Amino acid sequence: MHALVEHDGRDDAVAVEEPLEIRVDGEPVAVTMRTPGHDEELALGFLVGEGLIDPMRARAAGPTDDFANNVVEVEGPLERELPTRRFYTSSSCGVCGKGALDEVAVHAPPVGGDDLRIERGLLAALPDRLRQAQPEFDRTGGIHATGLFTPRGELLAVREDVGRHNAMDKVIGWALNQHRLPLSGSVLCVSGRLSFELVQKAVVAGAPVLVGVGAPTSLAIALASDRNLTLAGFARGDRVNLYTGDHRVL
Amino acid sequence: MHALVEHDGRDDAVAVEEPLEIRVDGEPVAVTMRTPGHDEELALGFLVGEGLIDPMRARAAGPTDDFANNVVEVEGPLERELPTRRFYTSSSCGVCGKGALDEVAVHAPPVGGDDLRIERGLLAALPDRLRQAQPEFDRTGGIHATGLFTPRGELLAVREDVGRHNAMDKVIGWALNQHRLPLSGSVLCVSGRLSFELVQKAVVAGAPVLVGVGAPTSLAIALASDRNLTLAGFARGDRVNLYTGDHRVL
Repeated sequence: MHALVEHDGRDDAVAVEEPLEIRVDGEPVAVTMRTPGHDEELALGFLVGEGLIDPMRARAAGPTDDFANNVVEVEGPLERELPTRRFYTSSSCGVCGKGALDEVAVHAPPVGGDDLRIERGLLAALPDRLRQAQPEFDRTGGIHATGLFTPRGELLAVREDVGRHNAMDKVIGWALNQHRLPLSGSVLCVSGRLSFELVQKAVVAGAPVLVGVGAPTSLAIALASDRNLTLAGFARGDRVNLYTGDHRVL
Repeated sequence: MHALVEHDGRDDAVAVEEPLEIRVDGEPVAVTMRTPGHDEELALGFLVGEGLIDPMRARAAGPTDDFANNVVEVEGPLERELPTRRFYTSSSCGVCGKGALDEVAVHAPPVGGDDLRIERGLLAALPDRLRQAQPEFDRTGGIHATGLFTPRGELLAVREDVGRHNAMDKVIGWALNQHRLPLSGSVLCVSGRLSFELVQKAVVAGAPVLVGVGAPTSLAIALASDRNLTLAGFARGDRVNLYTGDHRVL
């Protein structure tokens, strides 16, 4: 979704950004700044990624009538109490990279899909294919995307959003609605850099491969290694860096 | 801060990402994933930007001894209760762009600096100058930055972080420590896109001009217009798009 704005005496398209409130059984859980569209998928994907709802039971998300459609209601129940602070478990664990890894491990087993194979050249080319499937990027010049591909490079779904994490949440929510979770036979591709948070979402969704245009962080690589995810970055043209899980890459 | 990782049979540098817990008077307020370094500035800048501490009274942030230095303690008191959900005020207001703008207006007056003037060509060139002052980007190829410049283009401070918002928080925290808030005579420059959140931080810090390499969102432009901020995007080479506040640009 985009809006026309005037600058320098002419009209131009920019990506729309609006807050979205996500509720479970009427209880407000989170507010995220997102690009409107596929809001039910965003809510479901976010809740699954945070371990707040059971992907086997979650369904029936829907916008409420109030608040200009900036609220999505999801049927629960909540699987655990709302976190007040993420990654903080006890004073003996503390706030550190190790604690963050342990926190993810609590609600996400190592990803499977160890028989999945993808050609290295195809892996490098996925961001270009994703880019070609981004209508809003063409209009606005600035919106992130996540794509879900088969190991042969066929695009299953693409979602765009001003927030990198929202775009991935929407794809995971789409997969949930399509009964495709866990994503053990698929490849996730993102338009930006590879942070801990994005690897976390891929791991929880059970995707064995995550590739991005940009750089990974230290903790993203550590989590990918810990959870058996194939992580690839700097995918441009026919080149790609492979950080973890090279047994899935031919 | 970067770490060496092995990929494809060679060592390469990636940006470090670790959680940081921010406390006020011993109470945990937030956890953010950040690149270690300038953590006290990050904590102060974050708290000022959220309206949680008074910038005139805030001082004496310091890392605690525990938790591998991933905790920063700030002296309070807190200026308001911790928000459980951002932008949500009442059922009559609701969650919408208008509500988000009103929320910022509550703790940030329109920015001043209406006598500040900057040449359009210089404004367009600031991201290149910022880029040249990013040592970690050279090493890792993937880390964001915020720079603070004079209207003549002299660099006052630069901070890098895997999180775009963290980099700006660090610069604002630096300015607080230097007794430079509000930033009414300075120009903020960011390495990425221009979201609502980044405009919010610039407005609360009192910066009259914000320029970025990337695209603005609809709500970023709306907030900049509402709070009298000069917002410029797509600054590349000698070109820049000017969305709001053109009275400050020559």
